[in-house]
Amino acid sequence: MRVLGVDPGLTRCGIGVVDGAPGKPLRMAGVGVVRTPADADIGERLVLIERGIEAWLDEHRPQFVAVERVFSQHNVRTVMGTAQASAVALLCASRRGLPVALHTPSEVKAAVTGSGRAEKAQVGAMVTRLLRLDAPPKPADAADALALAICHIWRGTASDRLRQAVAAQRLRTPKGTA
Amino acid sequence: MRVLGVDPGLTRCGIGVVDGAPGKPLRMAGVGVVRTPADADIGERLVLIERGIEAWLDEHRPQFVAVERVFSQHNVRTVMGTAQASAVALLCASRRGLPVALHTPSEVKAAVTGSGRAEKAQVGAMVTRLLRLDAPPKPADAADALALAICHIWRGTASDRLRQAVAAQRLRTPKGTA
Repeated sequence: MRVLGVDPGLTRCGIGVVDGAPGKPLRMAGVGVVRTPADADIGERLVLIERGIEAWLDEHRPQFVAVERVFSQHNVRTVMGTAQASAVALLCASRRGLPVALHTPSEVKAAVTGSGRAEKAQVGAMVTRLLRLDAPPKPADAADALALAICHIWRGTASDRLRQAVAAQRLRTPKGTA
Repeated sequence: MRVLGVDPGLTRCGIGVVDGAPGKPLRMAGVGVVRTPADADIGERLVLIERGIEAWLDEHRPQFVAVERVFSQHNVRTVMGTAQASAVALLCASRRGLPVALHTPSEVKAAVTGSGRAEKAQVGAMVTRLLRLDAPPKPADAADALALAICHIWRGTASDRLRQAVAAQRLRTPKGTA
């Protein structure tokens, strides 16, 4: 199975694509970041994120999309931007009938390091080891997106077939004007 | 000028279309609500909101879009959904090269009632009067969307031509894969 992970953000949206299955070796299929200029209008930034994510989906054709679940305990302005960037990722995936899962940061950390409270560096180190990379992917948003994809491969499989079937079914309803 | 106002929400997204200019009578061109089922996946709900807003833009061809600015002083879960619905509205407008303005709830209240702290009923009453309607539009989200459009007509004109030119210019850049 191929999973595209998205660590949403307005300034940097981390993207990581991983192939794998529970109990089998993982392989990184791609990693990168969609960036938008901080001085652009919010609407334009969301359009740029949409174009970037669409390009990744077109190129890598994942079967699942995993997006980091946004919490609001942090800085309010940042959280709003993160929620808006995540909305674009969810929209792009759902529009294609791809099943989308949300994982919390602590679920992701626990999946790749064994501890939900692991530091960023530890997550980067485990991603590097699990994917047999030469160095941790940079920036951290890119490493986090890979960790998210790995988390999904290891956690998400139980209900994925059902979710995939339901998502595909729903998309068969009349398309309207979207 | 024709303005489409959006009061964003996942369950009910209010839409109001108003024609007018500062100092001239206002005319309601349309009002309604885009609804999504609370039991659907977040991705699907955003797809439904996108389809709904696209249908309104196709039918009414506004020159400007005004979206309520989301704040996070309220319930955290609600705010996340509101931020995500507003992202879809901003995306739909910006993708078409339409200039988008964000107005705060108190700016909208002040514009139509004279007080930034007006109650919902007062906003509804003034919208009804200003647009010469027989009764206040329901639900409140629909009335709020009309108030937002009126607010934009009265407040937003100074910088609108510049914004419109800039938005159109930026959209002429290569489209990528969006």
